[in-house]
Amino acid sequence: MTSYQPGTRSKLKRAHQRAAYDYETVHAAFDAMPMCHVGYVIDGQPYVTPTIQWRQGNHLYWHGSSASRMIKSLKDGAPACVTVSQFDGFVMARSPFHHSVNYRSAMAFGTCHSIEGRDEKEQALFEMFDHLFPGRWEDVRGNTEKELKATTVIVMEIEEAASKIRNEPPVDDEEDYDGVDCWAGVLPIVSKFTAPEDDPKLRQGIAFPDYLKGFLP
Amino acid sequence: MTSYQPGTRSKLKRAHQRAAYDYETVHAAFDAMPMCHVGYVIDGQPYVTPTIQWRQGNHLYWHGSSASRMIKSLKDGAPACVTVSQFDGFVMARSPFHHSVNYRSAMAFGTCHSIEGRDEKEQALFEMFDHLFPGRWEDVRGNTEKELKATTVIVMEIEEAASKIRNEPPVDDEEDYDGVDCWAGVLPIVSKFTAPEDDPKLRQGIAFPDYLKGFLP
Repeated sequence: MTSYQPGTRSKLKRAHQRAAYDYETVHAAFDAMPMCHVGYVIDGQPYVTPTIQWRQGNHLYWHGSSASRMIKSLKDGAPACVTVSQFDGFVMARSPFHHSVNYRSAMAFGTCHSIEGRDEKEQALFEMFDHLFPGRWEDVRGNTEKELKATTVIVMEIEEAASKIRNEPPVDDEEDYDGVDCWAGVLPIVSKFTAPEDDPKLRQGIAFPDYLKGFLP
Repeated sequence: MTSYQPGTRSKLKRAHQRAAYDYETVHAAFDAMPMCHVGYVIDGQPYVTPTIQWRQGNHLYWHGSSASRMIKSLKDGAPACVTVSQFDGFVMARSPFHHSVNYRSAMAFGTCHSIEGRDEKEQALFEMFDHLFPGRWEDVRGNTEKELKATTVIVMEIEEAASKIRNEPPVDDEEDYDGVDCWAGVLPIVSKFTAPEDDPKLRQGIAFPDYLKGFLP
């Protein structure tokens, strides 16, 4: 299988021409945007918490303080929805109704567990770090036992997922192209890295490392 | 009252020094980021859907197709959590544990309803439009009755809310400032509007309007 099976939770009801379920598209959405929004339920109340996710195969991972509400509520088999989105611009149509936004998004559904076992947790944290910042692990000091204990890693196997992308000019009603005297187009938004800021406490003589050059503007 | 009362849902358990509950900070977070993530629950399963929100006083609004799953599940008094976030950069510390991100976020909790009544709905849609794109209403054609019927506007009174912001250099363990030979600082991310893109179907002679100049780079 190279695609998620559209299911009750993931099958798009609206604008299904913008939907994709294949691994390549869904995984690309998660890989392109580390900041995600995790949805979970406590006593019937939904919560949405932003956090950093990373992906390996069909699994999403995130971590947090073992004392956090999100982590405590998810670590023993709770359902979650993890959504990533990038807001790429406003789509300005000739009618209010056809105004829209361009975006790249994906939603994944699954059941969460904490990674048990000291070594397994240490390995998962290393993989997160090495995935986000290849080459940096050798530069920083390692985790202490106390830090490991204070951290919980959550893993969610993706049971269902869908990507939804809009990336095009306005789509107006046919008669409005000629009938409405109105500028139409896209107001694009771009997110990018800008010049790195040294820690004000950085000791002299420590240069910005080569392995982070991918984060330069 | 000029602040939300921290409650069961909104009181921050972790990093509470980064939390704020006052109207000014919470509302500024929602006003700065129209794209939000709405959390809701269907049969115990959490869902997180990105959409565009706008705020008036202590109320958040969003809209969607009357046929959408999110809209249907929220319109008759369901609880929701609406979260906005802006990802401002990676915070590179001297230990993996103190790596972090800079961000501006807010979570709001409340109960949702649809706006009933044709005129009330039309007014809400006008206010959304006019709030996002002041001056544009006069340029576009108005909503048709069919479009009004196809659209549902959701309103949520903010019952609890909290903002959480991190905007600073790494905070390392005291001994690591001297003890670890490692570059530390922030890799900032900036989101901004770039040059507007005319609709390829834009008729000749229609210029980019003055009232949208706030969206220029």
